[in-house]
Amino acid sequence: MEFENFLPAFRLLTFRLYSTFAAMTRQQLIAQIFQKRSFLCVGLDTDITKIPKHLLAEPDPVFAFNKAIIDATRDICVSFKINTAFYEALGVKGWEAMEKTVHYIGKNHFKIADAKRGDIGNTSDQYAKAFFENMPFDAITVSPYMGEDSVKPFLQHEGKWAIVLGLTSNKGAKDFELQRMVSAGTNQGKADELLYEKVLKTVSQWGTPDNLMFVVGATQASAFANIRKLTPHHFYLVPGVGTQGGSLKEISEKARTKDCGILINISRAIIYASEKENFADKAREIALQFQQEMKAYL
Amino acid sequence: MEFENFLPAFRLLTFRLYSTFAAMTRQQLIAQIFQKRSFLCVGLDTDITKIPKHLLAEPDPVFAFNKAIIDATRDICVSFKINTAFYEALGVKGWEAMEKTVHYIGKNHFKIADAKRGDIGNTSDQYAKAFFENMPFDAITVSPYMGEDSVKPFLQHEGKWAIVLGLTSNKGAKDFELQRMVSAGTNQGKADELLYEKVLKTVSQWGTPDNLMFVVGATQASAFANIRKLTPHHFYLVPGVGTQGGSLKEISEKARTKDCGILINISRAIIYASEKENFADKAREIALQFQQEMKAYL
Repeated sequence: MEFENFLPAFRLLTFRLYSTFAAMTRQQLIAQIFQKRSFLCVGLDTDITKIPKHLLAEPDPVFAFNKAIIDATRDICVSFKINTAFYEALGVKGWEAMEKTVHYIGKNHFKIADAKRGDIGNTSDQYAKAFFENMPFDAITVSPYMGEDSVKPFLQHEGKWAIVLGLTSNKGAKDFELQRMVSAGTNQGKADELLYEKVLKTVSQWGTPDNLMFVVGATQASAFANIRKLTPHHFYLVPGVGTQGGSLKEISEKARTKDCGILINISRAIIYASEKENFADKAREIALQFQQEMKAYL
Repeated sequence: MEFENFLPAFRLLTFRLYSTFAAMTRQQLIAQIFQKRSFLCVGLDTDITKIPKHLLAEPDPVFAFNKAIIDATRDICVSFKINTAFYEALGVKGWEAMEKTVHYIGKNHFKIADAKRGDIGNTSDQYAKAFFENMPFDAITVSPYMGEDSVKPFLQHEGKWAIVLGLTSNKGAKDFELQRMVSAGTNQGKADELLYEKVLKTVSQWGTPDNLMFVVGATQASAFANIRKLTPHHFYLVPGVGTQGGSLKEISEKARTKDCGILINISRAIIYASEKENFADKAREIALQFQQEMKAYL
């Protein structure tokens, strides 16, 4: 009984040690990028209805799929992004698959929980605990809508990152993100910034380029030059290449910095490259095409 | 093997039937409110470090706590809100406790997943599956930042609700929600709405008062009259009474409609009323004080 009472505290301690150990700094991320000549993030949006049918005989089909994709791509990508929705849709089994997957990736990749979380301070604290302490993610995606106290808890974990939504890749970006604001410090009549610009300017004051990135969709390439001016040193996580149609070339030209400064996430175009038994080889083939293109730009 | 292959489809079918069965319509919610003379939502922000210590000997301390709180308050509240962050912070065990809790509540209460989700369409679909199909929640809280295609998937489940963030109760509301926008249809020079007002106006066109509510913080009571003008028929989920300091009286005066139209969420002030073995009795005492006040307003 004594030991059982002690166990949760002991687990917490080992989780904390592990999570500190597993964190990836900006310098380490940049080193990985130039060593592998890749700024590819493979998105594990693993949908149990889309994975090859033969995997359904496995005890944990989602983890079996992820394991194969990770093994097939880990030498040509620097990051893996787990889209938490696909795991939550499977309930407890899904959460288990997520935990196994993030541990399996290991410490040499930048592990992103694409969770779009954000709530009042005491609640964001709990989300940070879920993804940074109980699981060894390096980063979590965060929605900025609720403001500073909803984002800050994700920036207060040594070596961990918040990746805040800036300008997203979807059609709905026009509804609010691209709406025009009245800029502070100007006459009320003078409107000179869009909501996402205000988000970039404001949120970038809450952290540093060492613990804060932004999500900028690849389908928004025309805005990239402007975005880079607003946040010159931050990394961007860029979804929307592949199935959503964004151009890798255009983003690389407009958003790359001397430190690279971008992670391009590709999910469906890689992981669902084939529905057959050789799906992992096919995934590697597609990932390699993207990496070769990236290598040419670096 | 044949049966095992069939099992997931069978589960899905029963989940779908259950979830359809469990959905609560606007009329049913209103009936519950007037029958119980209560518009109280009890918030199950169950933090394992704050629950009475004697419960830690239980196999599932979080569920044991929730069960006691639910039993002690179910006749005087119309809704329970599960703050998903507190469950995710415990990993698989936490997700299990959440599933058990939402099933335990049963079909006579409006069950809210306070999850603040929202992502591109195919991903929001998965979140909807997680909370509406695999678990029998009636509603989920949603962040509007990414626009229409991120919110719509939550509105496409028969009898289920999206509760979209409008003006939240926290300090950070001033960072974006309360920032001034340039209104469409006016000269560029004329600024006449705040971001949260634009959100209320825009999002209210995506659903109806039968499947859409808004989150409006109790600490924003001075804005309630204006908010009620913008969205006269929608229900609001109102956090911020209790620990955060909002006034139940002021909200009731300014935001109530003939259908009531508000659900007041109280979490910490009720569930942590006592750390002793009689915590559930104490929780009921506090909940009853709030319900008696509500009864006077109805």
